[in-house]
Amino acid sequence: MRYKLIVSYIGTNYSGFQIQNNKKTIQQILQDVLSKVCQLQITVIASGRTDAGVSAISQVCHFDTSKEINEKKCLSYSNSLLPKDIRILSIEKVDDNFHARYNAKQKTYDYFFYVGMKNSVYESFATHVGINLDIQEMINACQFIIGEHDFSCFCASNTNVKDKVRIIYDCKIIEVDEHLYKLEITGNGFLYNMVRIIVGTLVMVGQKKLKSSDIVKIINMRDRSKAGKTMPSKGLILKKVVY
Amino acid sequence: MRYKLIVSYIGTNYSGFQIQNNKKTIQQILQDVLSKVCQLQITVIASGRTDAGVSAISQVCHFDTSKEINEKKCLSYSNSLLPKDIRILSIEKVDDNFHARYNAKQKTYDYFFYVGMKNSVYESFATHVGINLDIQEMINACQFIIGEHDFSCFCASNTNVKDKVRIIYDCKIIEVDEHLYKLEITGNGFLYNMVRIIVGTLVMVGQKKLKSSDIVKIINMRDRSKAGKTMPSKGLILKKVVY
Repeated sequence: MRYKLIVSYIGTNYSGFQIQNNKKTIQQILQDVLSKVCQLQITVIASGRTDAGVSAISQVCHFDTSKEINEKKCLSYSNSLLPKDIRILSIEKVDDNFHARYNAKQKTYDYFFYVGMKNSVYESFATHVGINLDIQEMINACQFIIGEHDFSCFCASNTNVKDKVRIIYDCKIIEVDEHLYKLEITGNGFLYNMVRIIVGTLVMVGQKKLKSSDIVKIINMRDRSKAGKTMPSKGLILKKVVY
Repeated sequence: MRYKLIVSYIGTNYSGFQIQNNKKTIQQILQDVLSKVCQLQITVIASGRTDAGVSAISQVCHFDTSKEINEKKCLSYSNSLLPKDIRILSIEKVDDNFHARYNAKQKTYDYFFYVGMKNSVYESFATHVGINLDIQEMINACQFIIGEHDFSCFCASNTNVKDKVRIIYDCKIIEVDEHLYKLEITGNGFLYNMVRIIVGTLVMVGQKKLKSSDIVKIINMRDRSKAGKTMPSKGLILKKVVY
């Protein structure tokens, strides 16, 4: 039997999603709790790993069991055992062909950032990017990221992935509140650190170190060193996975 | 000499703004740090107290000194001593007639709430109000709160304030993201627990226990027991004070 799991978590206190020796990871905690609840050894497969410090509003996973489970009881018992910064939103039985990673068609990430003086409230979930940025020019730059491109420029160099072509369906900056913004980006998949490097590059546009149209040149050069820095993981949230 | 202070804080770990014996309060910590930095006994007066658990993006305060201080040095030294969940955004010399509390003309609060299943990300700063609410009816209800009214119905009973007439300039519910909303309310002043009781009453509208137009009747009855419950302090943020 295969079950689909929707999970939210705050990444702050974890070394990312994926299991690593001697580190506190979301996958480890989920597996420990589900194994206890189901009285079976459970392996949890996610739509993709998220890095240390990255949060998720609805990460999608699946796991297999050798016997039927009561989804409702499993949900409430698991949540009673999980730490508060990890919550299971739903458990439902799915077809054996469903695969949380391979069947994911689309993902949406938010990256929160703010300008002005550092304040405690925004600092708790968003990245401070300076006193004053040309946000309008950053908004203009977003359009050049949309489309099917080889995004080698926005991929961390320490990766084994060969095909760096991805489709970005939507990319926009939204003013959430005074001084507070988010980049909302949807694509068929994302390369390692891709969203964080895109934000770092857009910040250079906001700082007038780049023009918005320079984004086109940077993408065409396919060279990581031409893009901006990798922004901190704080601020990044996996919002939605579509199948 | 009088100085105006803009401060942000996350209320979670404090027993509110105002000094209380043997409790960790924002006022106490600000006074301790400023007294050390200025080498003077400093008393900090805020635009108003905020309750335990309530955060502020820009609370305004003032304090007096018997000698000139270097604002820039005071700002950076104070921030280096303050805990991260309290940040001073600015310090500037003002006229001796300026009073953070008595001169405040207008305040804006945000109250964050969300629907759907409980998730860790929203749960960290917003109040969960149920699986499904009639948000449109809650939006309609907001218009009946705007204006000059005796708001006795939205005032906690344990208060000494006699004049309960306040002017609400604006009151609206904004969809921040899927399932996540905030009430943004601006007025010339707020009664004890007023925003939290307004949200509690609007939630009853969303649950269809009240019609939006019932708000008018509730206000006219001037009776706390007719309004909804006081919502948790988590979710409430003092956003702006105008002078």
